[in-house]
Amino acid sequence: MMNPVALEHASRLVNHGPTVLVSTAHEGRRNVMAAAWSMPVEFTPPRIAVVIDKQTLTHELLMASGHFALGLPTPALADFSYAVGTRSGREGDKFRQLGLEPDTRNPLELPLVPGCSAWLLLRRIPEPHSESAYDTVFGEVLWAAADARIFANGRWDFRDDNADLHTLHHLGAGQFVVPSRVVQAKG
Amino acid sequence: MMNPVALEHASRLVNHGPTVLVSTAHEGRRNVMAAAWSMPVEFTPPRIAVVIDKQTLTHELLMASGHFALGLPTPALADFSYAVGTRSGREGDKFRQLGLEPDTRNPLELPLVPGCSAWLLLRRIPEPHSESAYDTVFGEVLWAAADARIFANGRWDFRDDNADLHTLHHLGAGQFVVPSRVVQAKG
Repeated sequence: MMNPVALEHASRLVNHGPTVLVSTAHEGRRNVMAAAWSMPVEFTPPRIAVVIDKQTLTHELLMASGHFALGLPTPALADFSYAVGTRSGREGDKFRQLGLEPDTRNPLELPLVPGCSAWLLLRRIPEPHSESAYDTVFGEVLWAAADARIFANGRWDFRDDNADLHTLHHLGAGQFVVPSRVVQAKG
Repeated sequence: MMNPVALEHASRLVNHGPTVLVSTAHEGRRNVMAAAWSMPVEFTPPRIAVVIDKQTLTHELLMASGHFALGLPTPALADFSYAVGTRSGREGDKFRQLGLEPDTRNPLELPLVPGCSAWLLLRRIPEPHSESAYDTVFGEVLWAAADARIFANGRWDFRDDNADLHTLHHLGAGQFVVPSRVVQAKG
């Protein structure tokens, strides 16, 4: 279900503030965590900022490899997202613990979470001060893909009949809201 | 409808990625713009990053005053949000053009947008490199308030009967999605 997304449209994937799953890997180790805090900072080139705690295994693997991936979880992945947001990868492989086999068939062979509505591969843009002072990592998107049933031709299309692909937005304490109602402003 | 929000809960107001309205003022000039790109970076102290184009009047007033405000627009403010996101304050006062009188009864007397579900006042944390390289402004929340019908005791409460207070999340080109369905993950 991974259909390529043109890089010029990649920032739109996270324009509306979804929770993301951050995948990393380095020298045989791999990890995934949830991040509620991310945002695009540029359309061209597509750049995204994500808050990743310096203490995490994700941060360690990201720094070591220079790359990371984002996946946009769907409602069926709510339990998984909350679990990987509260466990530490230092206490065992979360994919194995949670019985989910990641998909590494992507240009960076990063462990992507199947069943997401979209995925992005990024290279870290080294910004030691922002990383240190605000846990804020900047990345440039190298590749993006989406499930064509909800994102096609550079646009999201939230409908009742694809509600199982809608994004999750974390309110706190494992409670998410799912955007479903579309409002078109008069231009 | 502005009820105080404890500072320890302020970052939760934007945890789920809503579009925000950025209000600024300095020496008799005032402005408001929409920003789809913001995120918390810290709970305590409450700190938020917002992408604000360096060319904008908002950026100029923010740099001059050292302060800015965020409002979280509701569906009834979709047209207003799109309009203030596409016009420039350099071509006239947007509040006057759009016939909306801002509310300045707040500790910094910033021009807040009535009818939002929440409001935050922030002081700029000077970060010239992030501001220059990524248009990313970091701010620390000094004061926050919310409409108690949707945010109370430090928590969002999205229900069918307060749908007119739900947040807007910009997909692009004036199209917003409104989160209404709540999913609670198993802990």
